[in-house]
Amino acid sequence: MLLRLPQGYRAAGVFCGVKRSGKLDLSLVVSDRPAVGAAVYTKNLVCAAPVTIDRERTPSEAIRVVAINSGVANACTGDQGIADARQMAAWAAEAVDARPEQALVMSTGVIGSMLPMDKIQAGIQAAARELGDDEQSLDNAARGIMTTDTVPKLCGREVSIGGTLTRVTGIAKGAAMIGPNMSTMLSLIMTDAPLRVKDAQAALVDAVDESFHCISVDGHMSTNDTVILLANGAASPSPNPSPERGGGFPNPLTGKGLEDFRTTLFEVSEDLAQSIPADGEGATHLITVEVHGCRSRQDALRIGKTIADSPLVKTAIAGADPNWGRIVSAAGYAGVQFDPSKVTLHLNGLLLYERGAPVDFSPDAVSKSIAADRNTSIVLILEEGKACARFWTTDLTAEYVRLNADYHT
Amino acid sequence: MLLRLPQGYRAAGVFCGVKRSGKLDLSLVVSDRPAVGAAVYTKNLVCAAPVTIDRERTPSEAIRVVAINSGVANACTGDQGIADARQMAAWAAEAVDARPEQALVMSTGVIGSMLPMDKIQAGIQAAARELGDDEQSLDNAARGIMTTDTVPKLCGREVSIGGTLTRVTGIAKGAAMIGPNMSTMLSLIMTDAPLRVKDAQAALVDAVDESFHCISVDGHMSTNDTVILLANGAASPSPNPSPERGGGFPNPLTGKGLEDFRTTLFEVSEDLAQSIPADGEGATHLITVEVHGCRSRQDALRIGKTIADSPLVKTAIAGADPNWGRIVSAAGYAGVQFDPSKVTLHLNGLLLYERGAPVDFSPDAVSKSIAADRNTSIVLILEEGKACARFWTTDLTAEYVRLNADYHT
Repeated sequence: MLLRLPQGYRAAGVFCGVKRSGKLDLSLVVSDRPAVGAAVYTKNLVCAAPVTIDRERTPSEAIRVVAINSGVANACTGDQGIADARQMAAWAAEAVDARPEQALVMSTGVIGSMLPMDKIQAGIQAAARELGDDEQSLDNAARGIMTTDTVPKLCGREVSIGGTLTRVTGIAKGAAMIGPNMSTMLSLIMTDAPLRVKDAQAALVDAVDESFHCISVDGHMSTNDTVILLANGAASPSPNPSPERGGGFPNPLTGKGLEDFRTTLFEVSEDLAQSIPADGEGATHLITVEVHGCRSRQDALRIGKTIADSPLVKTAIAGADPNWGRIVSAAGYAGVQFDPSKVTLHLNGLLLYERGAPVDFSPDAVSKSIAADRNTSIVLILEEGKACARFWTTDLTAEYVRLNADYHT
Repeated sequence: MLLRLPQGYRAAGVFCGVKRSGKLDLSLVVSDRPAVGAAVYTKNLVCAAPVTIDRERTPSEAIRVVAINSGVANACTGDQGIADARQMAAWAAEAVDARPEQALVMSTGVIGSMLPMDKIQAGIQAAARELGDDEQSLDNAARGIMTTDTVPKLCGREVSIGGTLTRVTGIAKGAAMIGPNMSTMLSLIMTDAPLRVKDAQAALVDAVDESFHCISVDGHMSTNDTVILLANGAASPSPNPSPERGGGFPNPLTGKGLEDFRTTLFEVSEDLAQSIPADGEGATHLITVEVHGCRSRQDALRIGKTIADSPLVKTAIAGADPNWGRIVSAAGYAGVQFDPSKVTLHLNGLLLYERGAPVDFSPDAVSKSIAADRNTSIVLILEEGKACARFWTTDLTAEYVRLNADYHT
């Protein structure tokens, strides 16, 4: 798929020396005109300094730049960490002639280490010189935020909204924590659609709710998790969308146009979110857990997450074991009331358990179907109501343990 | 330690053919006089048939026998499973001349398989012939309930309560699920103290709350978890404690005597509970998580369990990595409100994090202290209140994954 930045954005990714590996470790994304900025953050009480700074600044009508470093998370770093995050944002703003509060920052990497500020400053300046609106620049930005990800994560859509070609393009990075604490799920989604601040924030909250909030690798919520949406309105057919005009947007989307945008944002969020467990540490399977027939979506999600977080379910899939007892018993301790004699389970489309009783099936056939495909589908059906939910996770392999145990601080 | 059955109990463990390994797989514990029976069960909605039967029968004033098999859990087995559990109890009662409702049953092993009833019947009859009150009989009973446990788990105390020598002796088995679904934490605690039913049940609930409810291996709650307390009053100095006298107990403990018993029960429960993660699948460390300075014990327990269940914390200990960021960030997502700038962390007695900020420490020294000792101590101190709690878990090793992934149903 041809993946391009939306109108009015430029991006760059550079190596500035935070990562010892020599790989790209600082990304800059700039909107040439002030963009609406919406964001959703980690619910972890122990949150990183950049999360504290960004929380003060979003939602906003006038974000110009987002600076992201990988290698050091700037988490558990006390007052100095807050000052450093603020300084990092100030340098990013300065590099694109914006006011300090028009800059957002994200960090991912080691917990408890201070940012190497001289390198960050040089990196921001270097990235500002390399900003481009081409595919390579976008790809570099996606690579500059990677930690233990094995592939950069990008996704986008080009759709016509109200007759105007509109793009929604996002980058993301993975969710496991390693070496010693390479943490965090980060994502930045850009659009040239024109949006009101409240509509952008509501659309992002809803999209995250059905995507980034429905994934796990190891169930360990990070200190830095952040999803940012920028909407600069540059795709609008409105006249004179010059970079200098400051805040205020032409014809913000409403009605059908807003609905179309929300659908596209949901699709992009879902693709980005899935790409995280798909690239989970040591993972050999992306597991999709669907739960049907619940009283509420909340119930379905809770059961899905409990199944997805069970190390016994995850090891069973790693071992291609059609171990339905682990799945059904995980549902039973999710804290949701249901009638256990009305539970049905399918794995990769094969019926394993029907209305509370085991059925005859070929363990060999199920095992082969798990082994043969990187995607595993678990479908649990209750008979309590009509609500359903999907949750995505990885399997749990010895390689995950090796990656996370074999580091010495 | 000399470990003996309390007065008036006999036990046996035999091989009846449920396990393919040829190891002991059926245990019988008999109280020669009717005993008060208290019990605490799994909260899993998907509970096994023996749990359903025992729930109907406890608390009780007149339990005579407990039959336990390993190898098949009799869980997710529908109506047939319930009938089988009832029949198993009936055979156990018959073997000791008791009424059917005076028998309790426990099962542990594969989920979704039916009990091999002919073998169970023969096993109960064989065990009844081998009942003894010696140490070997007790040891056999402890071995007959093992699944993936590497050692039998027994613990006991002999104390003087109100001038009468009283014993509290328990057996238990491990908590991980394997091969394909060897599940379950089971424990049976026997005492010759005289107790009222309500006092026995209350004492057991309180003891379990601070012991068996404070351990995890993989956080996967089993379908069969059961802890039973039998109290037959045979230690009482009361005259004529003959087996034939039926219900009703001489001088049930009250006041100081009851308090002394509760303390002893608590100690035995804690020892038995700890022995489970200490023998966790693939485990190389028993981790004790202490959380201090909380507003309530509930808060402290929730934080302790969240830390204990984090695969990242567990892999860090397996790798002897003093990875405090993983511990502090796990506390942050436990769902308990606290001031993250007032968090202090010690690992094996060494200060790693103080009032929200990293401190200088020797990673090498901490790493060596983890590697050198099978026991790891994590102490997290908040400044919200005075409540505290302890939680025990294992580390997470590649061996755990191998054990749980490499089985094919």
